[in-house]
Amino acid sequence: MPVAKRLSAFLATVVVVAALASGAGATEVKLAEIERTHTLRRQLLSSRSVPCDSWRFAVETNTLREWETIPAQCEGYVGNYMMGSHYRSDSRVVVDEAIAYAEGLELSGQQRKGGVGVRRRRDHALQPPLLLQERLRPYNWTKFAEYLAEARSPALPDTLRLYQRLQALGIKPVILTGRHDDSQEATAKNLASAGYTGYEKLVHRPQNAKVNPRVFKSGERRKLEDAGYVIVGNIGDQWSDLLGEPEGARTFKLPSPMYCSA
Amino acid sequence: MPVAKRLSAFLATVVVVAALASGAGATEVKLAEIERTHTLRRQLLSSRSVPCDSWRFAVETNTLREWETIPAQCEGYVGNYMMGSHYRSDSRVVVDEAIAYAEGLELSGQQRKGGVGVRRRRDHALQPPLLLQERLRPYNWTKFAEYLAEARSPALPDTLRLYQRLQALGIKPVILTGRHDDSQEATAKNLASAGYTGYEKLVHRPQNAKVNPRVFKSGERRKLEDAGYVIVGNIGDQWSDLLGEPEGARTFKLPSPMYCSA
Repeated sequence: MPVAKRLSAFLATVVVVAALASGAGATEVKLAEIERTHTLRRQLLSSRSVPCDSWRFAVETNTLREWETIPAQCEGYVGNYMMGSHYRSDSRVVVDEAIAYAEGLELSGQQRKGGVGVRRRRDHALQPPLLLQERLRPYNWTKFAEYLAEARSPALPDTLRLYQRLQALGIKPVILTGRHDDSQEATAKNLASAGYTGYEKLVHRPQNAKVNPRVFKSGERRKLEDAGYVIVGNIGDQWSDLLGEPEGARTFKLPSPMYCSA
Repeated sequence: MPVAKRLSAFLATVVVVAALASGAGATEVKLAEIERTHTLRRQLLSSRSVPCDSWRFAVETNTLREWETIPAQCEGYVGNYMMGSHYRSDSRVVVDEAIAYAEGLELSGQQRKGGVGVRRRRDHALQPPLLLQERLRPYNWTKFAEYLAEARSPALPDTLRLYQRLQALGIKPVILTGRHDDSQEATAKNLASAGYTGYEKLVHRPQNAKVNPRVFKSGERRKLEDAGYVIVGNIGDQWSDLLGEPEGARTFKLPSPMYCSA
């Protein structure tokens, strides 16, 4: 019975949704127009095609799995979703719930530890056409690795807000990332520059490990519990971040119609 | 090693989303109008209120839990969603994926057994205002029991389509329902009249059991596995239908912004 310490962990996942580094010459998109176009266009879909919001529903609820590319007909829809107000408001509701939950925890008498989903995108630098063209093909992992090495991803505002609130509550982060450990230095540098400091642990996937993200992450959660941590919450944008015993006391699913990590 | 038989089970859940029995004098709603109104109204929400589609996102991804009522400001949105094309198209994509998955299974050499989500609503008899007014208050369980006893819920077309396709593939259903066993007769009668015949098992929750639906259902799945079944799929509209070991090889989440069963 070696539980000498009982620590509360609120843990999560580093996710980077990246596109190629390029800012020049991108098509200007008027968001109000594509929002309007999409919502009106929906009515015109034939009964045999899949409405893009139903595709997104099935993706976000873990019914559609191991998909590699966004359906070509949903390019406009996903661009609208990510770059318009929807993605931000979905993220905000999730983070608001996570904060309310954390504030309601009774952690007195325990050392408080925790973690937070660190989710970063080149939010304000990206144009939807570039981003989407990249996601209509299988991932270019070489270019993705180059992007990670740049270590310049900004924080998502809502995620950083959660992170800071958890720290104010005395909860410290455990960050599990599916990134391989050869990017450890770049990840740590990027986290620091984006405002994520003072975390408890940053755990990368071993480069030679033959496990998928779900098995890796649930295994790491098991190690945390074995070490005496109580996982009070777990936030991530992939179901592979959240499912698999032990799941922690609560899970918080951030939106992610851009890619699927099994 | 008592696995004398290896049976494949595709199981699921009886869910009834009910409103009070009343058809007369309900407000006529022009669906095209509320769809249009909703999508346009979304832009007008202040930054501090929760957009209803973000509320739905958090509900459907198991971030918001144990909620009792639909937010009052989302009455129009949920009415639009349920009675317009969205709910049907979300269900269709989920069922299409379940059928594609079932068709890809290699079950040869095993006796094929299975189950299907049986999800029934008074789809075509209900008017949105009645339905929603009921869901803006905590459930009236007495009236709900009266409704169950009527045994007149129609099948959802997509769910019946899945059920029939599974049977054509040689897969038979196991139906787990959170309904208590005092409604067993009414449930069986209703299933038969709605077209669900030939299922393998229909398992009700014991009336005096002090377990919540998630614990009950995962416990029943464990019993099935212990009896030699292989659970090849599991479909339901509540996360309590789907989560908890053993989960089965795949899960399929039907939409359900109407109620939450923990």
